Amino acid sequence: MWVENGLIKTINQLLLPDRFEIITINDYEDAINAIKTMIVRGAPAIGGMGAYGLAMAVDQSDIDLHNIEKIKQQIKKARPTAFDLSYALDFVYNRIKDDQNSKPIKQVAFEAAEEFADLNVAACKMIGEFGNRLINDGDKILTHCNAGALATIDFGTALAPLRFAHYNKKNILVYVDETRPRLQGAKLTAWELHQEGIPHTVIVDNAAGYYMQNGEIDLVITGGDRIAFNGDAANKIGTYEKAVVAKTNNIPFYIAAPISTIDFNCTSGAEIPIEVRAQEEVLELDDLRIVSPGSHAKNPAFDVTPAEFITGIITEKGIFKPEELGKIAN
Amino acid sequence: MWVENGLIKTINQLLLPDRFEIITINDYEDAINAIKTMIVRGAPAIGGMGAYGLAMAVDQSDIDLHNIEKIKQQIKKARPTAFDLSYALDFVYNRIKDDQNSKPIKQVAFEAAEEFADLNVAACKMIGEFGNRLINDGDKILTHCNAGALATIDFGTALAPLRFAHYNKKNILVYVDETRPRLQGAKLTAWELHQEGIPHTVIVDNAAGYYMQNGEIDLVITGGDRIAFNGDAANKIGTYEKAVVAKTNNIPFYIAAPISTIDFNCTSGAEIPIEVRAQEEVLELDDLRIVSPGSHAKNPAFDVTPAEFITGIITEKGIFKPEELGKIAN
Repeated sequence: MWVENGLIKTINQLLLPDRFEIITINDYEDAINAIKTMIVRGAPAIGGMGAYGLAMAVDQSDIDLHNIEKIKQQIKKARPTAFDLSYALDFVYNRIKDDQNSKPIKQVAFEAAEEFADLNVAACKMIGEFGNRLINDGDKILTHCNAGALATIDFGTALAPLRFAHYNKKNILVYVDETRPRLQGAKLTAWELHQEGIPHTVIVDNAAGYYMQNGEIDLVITGGDRIAFNGDAANKIGTYEKAVVAKTNNIPFYIAAPISTIDFNCTSGAEIPIEVRAQEEVLELDDLRIVSPGSHAKNPAFDVTPAEFITGIITEKGIFKPEELGKIAN
Repeated sequence: MWVENGLIKTINQLLLPDRFEIITINDYEDAINAIKTMIVRGAPAIGGMGAYGLAMAVDQSDIDLHNIEKIKQQIKKARPTAFDLSYALDFVYNRIKDDQNSKPIKQVAFEAAEEFADLNVAACKMIGEFGNRLINDGDKILTHCNAGALATIDFGTALAPLRFAHYNKKNILVYVDETRPRLQGAKLTAWELHQEGIPHTVIVDNAAGYYMQNGEIDLVITGGDRIAFNGDAANKIGTYEKAVVAKTNNIPFYIAAPISTIDFNCTSGAEIPIEVRAQEEVLELDDLRIVSPGSHAKNPAFDVTPAEFITGIITEKGIFKPEELGKIAN
C-alpha cells in the first residue's frame, strides 16, 4: 500500500491468486468501500487504508476538525472487529488536532498516515525477528487465514517469523488452513508462500486437528484482529478451535500482532464486537451455489480465543504472555 | 438403496442437491466404482452397497467360494476406513459359506444382503429412539458431515435422533457444519433436513467452536465410520476438533452408529486405517480451482476421536459410554 500523486495504490485482494492487479483508491469513500468489500483485508492493512482514507478526506476540501471527526467515525464503522482501524484513525486524527496550526492540514494528515504505515512495516519486521526465535530447523508450523504482507502494509504478522526462518535457511513446512468462508489461506497465504518459495501445504480447516494429534505440527502462529487487555484475542473465525486443539495437544499457540492491535480500553474478549457478515459468503463460492437450496447460513467472521489458550503474543517489543500485556501499557 | 430385477438402485449422491437422480448398479465392479467415487457414501450405505455388490458378483457367474472370497477382498479395498463395509461383506460371505448347499447360492447371497440392509434400517430407527431421549425441547444440536438417510440404507444415524425429536414436536435447531472438502453437510445434510422441514442453519466448519463457546450448542451428534473396542471413533475429518472443543465447553458429544460400526478386533484408534484422498478434492471445487496455483494440498478424509472426548455412543441396543463397549461384545 503506497501513495502516488495523493492517491492510494494497493493490491486488489479479491482478484488474487488469479490476477495480480493494483487498484487506485481515489477518495475516502473508495477507502470505505475497499475495506467493506475486502479489496483490502487484514487488520493492519485495514488500519493503513483507514489512515490514508482519512488523509484523503482532509485533502479533498476545506474541512474543519468537526467534519474530519465525522468522517473518521464513518470509516471506523466500515468493519467493526479489527482494532488497528480505530488505532490508525485516531493516530491521524490526533496528529491533525495537535499540528493543524504549524503546517498545512493536508500535509499533516498524509505525514501521519505515512508514519502509521512505516511504523507498521517496522513492527512487522521486529515481529519476524522475535518470532523467528521460536522456530527450530525442521519445524512444521500451522497458520490460519492470511496474516502476511497482503494483510499488513508489508511483510506480515504471522508470516513474518516464517519469512525470517526461511531467510535464515531453516527448513520449515507451513500447514495453511484454507480458511473458509473466504479462503484467505488457500488464496492469499498460499500465494505469498509460493512467491517466497517457502514449503507449504494447504489443508481444509477440518484437518488441522488431525495433524496436531499426529505430531505433525510443532507450532501454531496466527495474526490477531483485536487483543483485549487481559490477553483474549479476536481473530478470523476458526482461530479459537485451533487454539483449543493446540492446547489439548501441548502445541504452543502464538498470536503475532503489532501493539496497535491491543485495545487497552477493552478489558476482556467479551467486549470485542464480532462482525457477522452476509450469509452469501457461506452459501456461494464465486457464483456457484454450494449449499442446498432452501437452506440458510450464519456467518460470524471472527471468534475470540481466551487468553488461557494463548502461549504468547509476538509483538514488535518482544514476546509477551497474555497476562503480561500490562507491561506494554506501562 | 433397493433391488430391482437383481440390480441395485440408489441415489447418486454426487448430483445432490442440484439433481435427484437414481443410479443403477449393474455388477460388482459398478458397486466398487460407486463406493470409490462417492456416488454412495456414509459407512452403513457403503456397507449396503458392498453387500449387494458381492451378491451381484455371485449372481453373475458360476462362481466358487474361492472366487467369492477374492471379490470380497476387492470390494473391501474400495474404501479402507469405514468398518461397516468389512462387516457387511463378511455377513454375506459367511452366510454363503454356511448355506450354499441348502439353497441356490445366488438366492442365499441376495437374502443375506437384504437382511443386512433391513437390519441397518431397524438399527437406525432404534438409534433415533434412543438418541431422541437426549434431546430437550428447544435444544440446538451440532452435526458434522452427513449421517442421514443418504449415508445409511434409510433413516440415518446421527440424523435419526433429530428426526425423532422433530416427529415428537420438539423445537430444535440443527447447526450443520458444511464439512469441507466434500461439503456433505452443506449439500446432503442440509438437503435432508430441508426435505423434512427440520429447522437448521449451515455454518462453515470454522464457526462450530464460536457457537459452542457462546452457549448456542447444547449437544453434538455425529456418525461414525469405525469404532475401536476402547471407544476411539473414526469419523469424517474435523470430527476430532469438534469433540475436543465440545469437551472444553462441557457440551455432550455423541457418536451415533449401529453396532456393525464397532470393530471388536481393533483395540484402539491407532489401528484404524485412515484414508488419504486425492489432493484435487481440496484444490478444486467442481471445476473451479480455489487454491493458489503452484500450491499443493493434503487430504486426510477421516480422523480419530479418542474415547475421552466421547460422552456416549448411540446404538440400536442403547447408549453406551465408550468404555462400556465390552458390554455389547458380551
